[in-house]
Amino acid sequence: MDRDPGSIVAFLFDDFETLDLFGPVEVFGHLSKLYTIRYCSLEGGIVASVHGVRVETEKMSDVVDDPDLLIVPGGIGTRACVTDRTVLDVLRSAAERSTWVLTVCTGSGLLAATGLLDGRSATSNKIAFDWVRSQGRGVRWQPKARWVIDGKYYTSSGVSAGIDMALGFIGDILGINVAEQIAAGIEYIWNHDADNDSFAVE
Amino acid sequence: MDRDPGSIVAFLFDDFETLDLFGPVEVFGHLSKLYTIRYCSLEGGIVASVHGVRVETEKMSDVVDDPDLLIVPGGIGTRACVTDRTVLDVLRSAAERSTWVLTVCTGSGLLAATGLLDGRSATSNKIAFDWVRSQGRGVRWQPKARWVIDGKYYTSSGVSAGIDMALGFIGDILGINVAEQIAAGIEYIWNHDADNDSFAVE
Repeated sequence: MDRDPGSIVAFLFDDFETLDLFGPVEVFGHLSKLYTIRYCSLEGGIVASVHGVRVETEKMSDVVDDPDLLIVPGGIGTRACVTDRTVLDVLRSAAERSTWVLTVCTGSGLLAATGLLDGRSATSNKIAFDWVRSQGRGVRWQPKARWVIDGKYYTSSGVSAGIDMALGFIGDILGINVAEQIAAGIEYIWNHDADNDSFAVE
Repeated sequence: MDRDPGSIVAFLFDDFETLDLFGPVEVFGHLSKLYTIRYCSLEGGIVASVHGVRVETEKMSDVVDDPDLLIVPGGIGTRACVTDRTVLDVLRSAAERSTWVLTVCTGSGLLAATGLLDGRSATSNKIAFDWVRSQGRGVRWQPKARWVIDGKYYTSSGVSAGIDMALGFIGDILGINVAEQIAAGIEYIWNHDADNDSFAVE
């Protein structure tokens, strides 16, 4: 390594979906020489996943340097987030400052509520697709996609799709061999085709 | 539901592998009407995954009732655990008291170090197989298996295999339809065949 490690910021909120976050964390965690991962929330302190995993977080406003990558999980907690102007402002600012933004599952609905996905293509969880759609009428929602790339925004389908997308992102940025090595290391059967979505209902 | 929820206890230690734990947590989290999940460690307090996820835990000795299910993740932190007599004693006791025990990845090496897998079949992560083998010379280690069942013990291959095993366990206990519904809900392409191990090297 001849540069300082880049920074990944995960944006947590109460009742986030556990695997939405920790799938990509596992994948990016294998690049610890390239990236540090910070776990942040609006206020800092303990944030609980919908499955009761209580995670210590930093306050988002303490992240001074622009992140290389922002990860936004989904989960039932997004429903409260989209009605909270402060959350949306902080998330929008962090996303604007990040080189790349990855959302998993209904995390794309949360990001859409900031307006940043307007005019862009994106996807989300199948079960909550109508709710997600309602958060961004100006978004070109794709009901059949494992993940969608539009500019700096990567959005994935439900939960597990976040692992495939994280590997896909690494393939795009660092080369397919790096992504395949990580997938093999975690014994993950990677669906590497963003268009291959066996869970689509339309 | 006409019975009280059962209890799942996850045994955490510093430098556990993130997805080893949170893959199964996501799966069992979808049975929240049947099970509560408690996150425990030897001393309680904050425990950090190898990827810096700082999780609040209860003290293992505070778990008074016998768990229905004990989950033991793997990770590089197992190397310190197997040299700590107190950890092994506490883990052995918890496993003996649990109706079922599921280990993921090198978690089987940690459990093997307690002696509880002696004479039983088990599997583990491929990369660390020699180390795992050294933790239980009396175990019938299976180098090719997505997961292995022997009595009340389920042991899985590396990291992601824990998700497949958790779904397999639910299929065995609650029926394949329940497992398939969870897999579909998290948009997970389930490898439901415990013998189908594309990562085996032998």
